[in-house]
Amino acid sequence: MTVARLEAVLQKIADHIAARSDRGRPADYIPQLAAADLSRFGIAVATADGDLVACGDHESPFSIQSISKVFTLTLALGQIGDALWQRVGREPSGNPFNSIVQLEYERGRPRNPFINAGAIAVTDAIVAGHQPKEALGAILRFIRFVADDEAITIDHDVAASEKETGFRNMALANYMRAFGNLENPVDFTLGVYFHHCAIAMSCRQLAKAGRYLAFGGRLSPEGPQVISPERARRINALMLTCGHYDGSGEFAFRVGLPGKSGVGGGILAIVPGKASIAAWSPGLDHNGNSWLATAALEELSREMGWSVF
Amino acid sequence: MTVARLEAVLQKIADHIAARSDRGRPADYIPQLAAADLSRFGIAVATADGDLVACGDHESPFSIQSISKVFTLTLALGQIGDALWQRVGREPSGNPFNSIVQLEYERGRPRNPFINAGAIAVTDAIVAGHQPKEALGAILRFIRFVADDEAITIDHDVAASEKETGFRNMALANYMRAFGNLENPVDFTLGVYFHHCAIAMSCRQLAKAGRYLAFGGRLSPEGPQVISPERARRINALMLTCGHYDGSGEFAFRVGLPGKSGVGGGILAIVPGKASIAAWSPGLDHNGNSWLATAALEELSREMGWSVF
Amino acid sequence: MTVARLEAVLQKIADHIAARSDRGRPADYIPQLAAADLSRFGIAVATADGDLVACGDHESPFSIQSISKVFTLTLALGQIGDALWQRVGREPSGNPFNSIVQLEYERGRPRNPFINAGAIAVTDAIVAGHQPKEALGAILRFIRFVADDEAITIDHDVAASEKETGFRNMALANYMRAFGNLENPVDFTLGVYFHHCAIAMSCRQLAKAGRYLAFGGRLSPEGPQVISPERARRINALMLTCGHYDGSGEFAFRVGLPGKSGVGGGILAIVPGKASIAAWSPGLDHNGNSWLATAALEELSREMGWSVF
Amino acid sequence: MTVARLEAVLQKIADHIAARSDRGRPADYIPQLAAADLSRFGIAVATADGDLVACGDHESPFSIQSISKVFTLTLALGQIGDALWQRVGREPSGNPFNSIVQLEYERGRPRNPFINAGAIAVTDAIVAGHQPKEALGAILRFIRFVADDEAITIDHDVAASEKETGFRNMALANYMRAFGNLENPVDFTLGVYFHHCAIAMSCRQLAKAGRYLAFGGRLSPEGPQVISPERARRINALMLTCGHYDGSGEFAFRVGLPGKSGVGGGILAIVPGKASIAAWSPGLDHNGNSWLATAALEELSREMGWSVF
Repeated sequence: MTVARLEAVLQKIADHIAARSDRGRPADYIPQLAAADLSRFGIAVATADGDLVACGDHESPFSIQSISKVFTLTLALGQIGDALWQRVGREPSGNPFNSIVQLEYERGRPRNPFINAGAIAVTDAIVAGHQPKEALGAILRFIRFVADDEAITIDHDVAASEKETGFRNMALANYMRAFGNLENPVDFTLGVYFHHCAIAMSCRQLAKAGRYLAFGGRLSPEGPQVISPERARRINALMLTCGHYDGSGEFAFRVGLPGKSGVGGGILAIVPGKASIAAWSPGLDHNGNSWLATAALEELSREMGWSVF
Repeated sequence: MTVARLEAVLQKIADHIAARSDRGRPADYIPQLAAADLSRFGIAVATADGDLVACGDHESPFSIQSISKVFTLTLALGQIGDALWQRVGREPSGNPFNSIVQLEYERGRPRNPFINAGAIAVTDAIVAGHQPKEALGAILRFIRFVADDEAITIDHDVAASEKETGFRNMALANYMRAFGNLENPVDFTLGVYFHHCAIAMSCRQLAKAGRYLAFGGRLSPEGPQVISPERARRINALMLTCGHYDGSGEFAFRVGLPGKSGVGGGILAIVPGKASIAAWSPGLDHNGNSWLATAALEELSREMGWSVF
Repeated sequence: MTVARLEAVLQKIADHIAARSDRGRPADYIPQLAAADLSRFGIAVATADGDLVACGDHESPFSIQSISKVFTLTLALGQIGDALWQRVGREPSGNPFNSIVQLEYERGRPRNPFINAGAIAVTDAIVAGHQPKEALGAILRFIRFVADDEAITIDHDVAASEKETGFRNMALANYMRAFGNLENPVDFTLGVYFHHCAIAMSCRQLAKAGRYLAFGGRLSPEGPQVISPERARRINALMLTCGHYDGSGEFAFRVGLPGKSGVGGGILAIVPGKASIAAWSPGLDHNGNSWLATAALEELSREMGWSVF
Repeated sequence: MTVARLEAVLQKIADHIAARSDRGRPADYIPQLAAADLSRFGIAVATADGDLVACGDHESPFSIQSISKVFTLTLALGQIGDALWQRVGREPSGNPFNSIVQLEYERGRPRNPFINAGAIAVTDAIVAGHQPKEALGAILRFIRFVADDEAITIDHDVAASEKETGFRNMALANYMRAFGNLENPVDFTLGVYFHHCAIAMSCRQLAKAGRYLAFGGRLSPEGPQVISPERARRINALMLTCGHYDGSGEFAFRVGLPGKSGVGGGILAIVPGKASIAAWSPGLDHNGNSWLATAALEELSREMGWSVF
């Protein structure tokens, strides 16, 4: 693939997106997200050749929200390995991201690491007796490392808002604690969780951060190994089956790529062996996934023949 | 890939499987399946080069059971196109294959075409006012065509047993009928359903039958088009997210291929662009998926580097 | 209590009911019920003194529907005694009358004998290997006996309509059969069930039929024993906790009497030691209980000081 | 009823209970309850004549736990009247006392005031912007008043243990807060909740405290009105349908009286117009209700003919 071809495709997609009047609705549970400008759209692709091709608002930082769960999962697996799977499952939940129903039926073990409960358990595994600040530092260092960008920061206003309104997450964390599936003080673990969800990244930064999943665990096909190829494949598998909550099947059906969405409107999508993609538009569908970022990725996947299927 | 390399890999896998003492348990709800010999194992791979490489009991017919749902889905989409999705969803259910709970909460619309309720709705779309015999004929013709094998037949003893014990399926069908999501008499639709689940195929036949999903809708990379490439991709996506019931995430995690299992112990797995695979061993895990066919596919995918992720 | 006092109270209630413009909505799943005249209202009280005081349309037969479940429960307990409780529970379900969800979670054992699933299991216990006609004959004989009225009959048009549209009940019965909690052919048991729900009775007849529950198991305080006093008390307890589906708590809260409703708009209410009451008005609330019969019983209970609490 | 007769019945019951080897299991989530002596049993009856007849360990204080919910409900209804029912329902839940499932399906509104979630909402209505200490003071004053006993106190060790292990209640409270059904800080409301559950009372004190429910809202049939007769009836109705969690139907079936249990092993039961009863034995059944206090109440109700049915 040539850069020119990819640039042309991205431009065409951006034009199509710009022309759309159906733009979804922003997340409205915190003011920082509710105030989003629905006209925004950005996309960036990090290729196997080391190119970074982008279009639209690709340098604007946005709240990555649940996309951070991909990085915390990677980090937790690096720290405790497969023992993590005793605390969280690997199956699609069939329920909304913040559902507590299965936690009751399945005695405090979340279905997968990408629904809120699962991601809180993963964060708890990272905290592991340390101070929240240290755990958060480790997460931020990892993301900066894989993105090769020290400028990535946490939006503390967003983190504060998350905490103020995070009663369902408080409920999930306490519920897991009741079943012994949370080892640190609830406030510690949730503090870290709210902050890593509040990390702000641009499409460029996010596309770069996802490279290790696209290139067999390396930052580039020939680069140094960050995680094993098998672990990269497995995280991709989880992204495909669980990365869009109860819209995961639909994303696989339409886009055909492993992906992880966040309510900030971002989506990280992986083309194994070929590219890491970040798309962003703040309007969401009813499942909480970006309406137009999904549309953009569907077109990109089709145009480039990138579906894994 | 050379045939010799693939033959060697399959033989090694067959040796590993033969040495295993953990063999799962056969389905026990009908005598024909309960009587299965747990020592049996077969595997067959239809490659893009047109080769058919196989090992073990690859010529023994077994009851394909839910694997037939891949073919009925293909047929129904061919008949009524995307209108089918008004009657059945595209999301993992997070529940066992024969669960009725979501049908109540979601007013009679099954989550996906591979759980029992969804497959019954798909069968109903195929019946579409015709006599059961005609509908069943169409299904059998389609499978024989894609497998290029006129010898494929229905095991009528199995079909009769299915019907005798099919009370949960009777419940599912009547429940959908109550919500207007079944158009034909329950007996008609279930009659066809029980019979297409009772089709018997060998690994060889099944691997050949899956080629159109591996080769962009064609029976071979250069062969005639059976379905569009996009439809093939989409069916593969559904197989990956929903093909193993509440073990779908696990199969994606371990094997990394679209696959569809049946309680007869068979699994059809697709390597897009490269191969169609059928593996069979009658012992099941607690989700109703073949314990050793899964293990064999995991090893094959790893050895050949075939994971889509 | 004097008859004159009771007559005056019933007349006042009837006047209040006649003046109401909020009248609920009739059951609409079969034409015979959907066509109901919402202006109809009747009430009848059988007293401990042997009087039958009534007002309004107290001689008009209506479809007793689920009220029949009180009589089938009595009959089944008479036939197999406490063994019945192995097949059906004694707890409020917290779910709608036709819900199938708990059946899945609780492996085919309905929560109580008054939700549809439970009543089907009770009917199955009555069929017990006999022909449907015989079982139905036994039910009808029992009701005619306790009502002291040979004129009570089944509305076969209603029964036929029930059967035609009874897909959810078909689902419930097949589901229980799948768990071994239905012993007779589904068609036999449901045939009897649909027919006993289609029994037509007037308020007068129904009030008389309920006397054995009001008078310690006797048709009058000094009359012959039909069932033991303890059994009568227990059936009353079940009516109070489960007799109005997921509106049972509300009925207990407002009326304070054991009662059983039917979607034909009838309610049988018991004042232990004092009276058996039947009220009828075909408009229903959102739980499927008669809107105005409930209002009438609330006023009657308050005026007469009849609440058991 | 003569005191002598009642004394004889209570003594016989106490003898029967003493002879039982099946004694249930104590609550084990906090050390204070887990350490309970299973041989303990007490019972006390406050009669309409003003007598207090008791037997066994009737002067030993025990943790009233959920029985306190009857008093907080009374208090909250006194403060805000029927507006309370906008925040909590009046239906049996069909689920365990600490279930969170229905809260999700029913958007944060608990089914009834006696399951944990409902009782927390009721406590929140009492807090109503005041300091926890004031709210708790009001609750304690009310209980001391209706029990006519200033010696009743809170066991602060129990309260502290409840708080330390109260993660499920933390989850419930936060979950309701997420839906706007908790108005005070979670810590405030739960602080009051944990403390009123930790009130210690003897059977004598508890039987006296329940008199206003037995005597139409008065502390004795001729005494001053504490609450209206209608409100007393309604609270009794709620106790009957919801007072024993998912064992409420069973208690109504066997005992036939409105009752409220606590995991400390106590049960308050009301015989409208006749008596208020407190029974206590710390061993519980699988629903969390006292195994032997239930048995004692069943025998007492039968012997005295006190069933409301």
